[in-house]
Amino acid sequence: MERLDPAIASALKDPSALIPAIVQDSISGEILMLAYMNSDSLAATLTSGRATFWSRSRNEIWIKGATSGHIQEVHSITLDCDGDALLLKVTQTGTACHTGKETCFHNPLTLDTSPDLIS
Amino acid sequence: MERLDPAIASALKDPSALIPAIVQDSISGEILMLAYMNSDSLAATLTSGRATFWSRSRNEIWIKGATSGHIQEVHSITLDCDGDALLLKVTQTGTACHTGKETCFHNPLTLDTSPDLIS
Repeated sequence: MERLDPAIASALKDPSALIPAIVQDSISGEILMLAYMNSDSLAATLTSGRATFWSRSRNEIWIKGATSGHIQEVHSITLDCDGDALLLKVTQTGTACHTGKETCFHNPLTLDTSPDLIS
Repeated sequence: MERLDPAIASALKDPSALIPAIVQDSISGEILMLAYMNSDSLAATLTSGRATFWSRSRNEIWIKGATSGHIQEVHSITLDCDGDALLLKVTQTGTACHTGKETCFHNPLTLDTSPDLIS
């Protein structure tokens, strides 16, 4: 198991907490998914260049695409100002979503605003 | 206080849980920040068209920009496949980050991958 560089761990708000990781297509800018990392999966991602998360449902390290082949090659990882969110820019092989859609974000909600509030 | 439409509440994995909301600039595609919504703040966002979150530090509804003027006009809200993450596309007035930077994601982490793994 990879261990996280202490300098990076110290930049996290809580190194023992799960941290949400936004996954963005590095070319199109489309948001593909949001998943969670623990320190070990962040360390594995930084070392391997393959997006690796913590599966909350299976309670285990989850190398994205390990079974489907739909891997994510990571080009950059950026921590936010509070040290409690990550942004990954990736090249996606296949589709990000288990439904077969390109992105997990495919259920639009209806804004109720009247036209004079949103132009 | 706004109440969330029952049809939308039923699409959420857990309507009583905080849900991470990714905020993306609707034109540039840049990721501006990640914050959290509860049902009431999601309802307020859908009704007002102004990004409204739940402040975990202040434990209260947080209309983004209410004090700074750095509001976010919401153009779309999309729920993910699992019903436990949101994507907002917005027009940002001023800067998203409290540090004055355009985005909260400004701390790059170093990928340790060798050149043959990442081209």
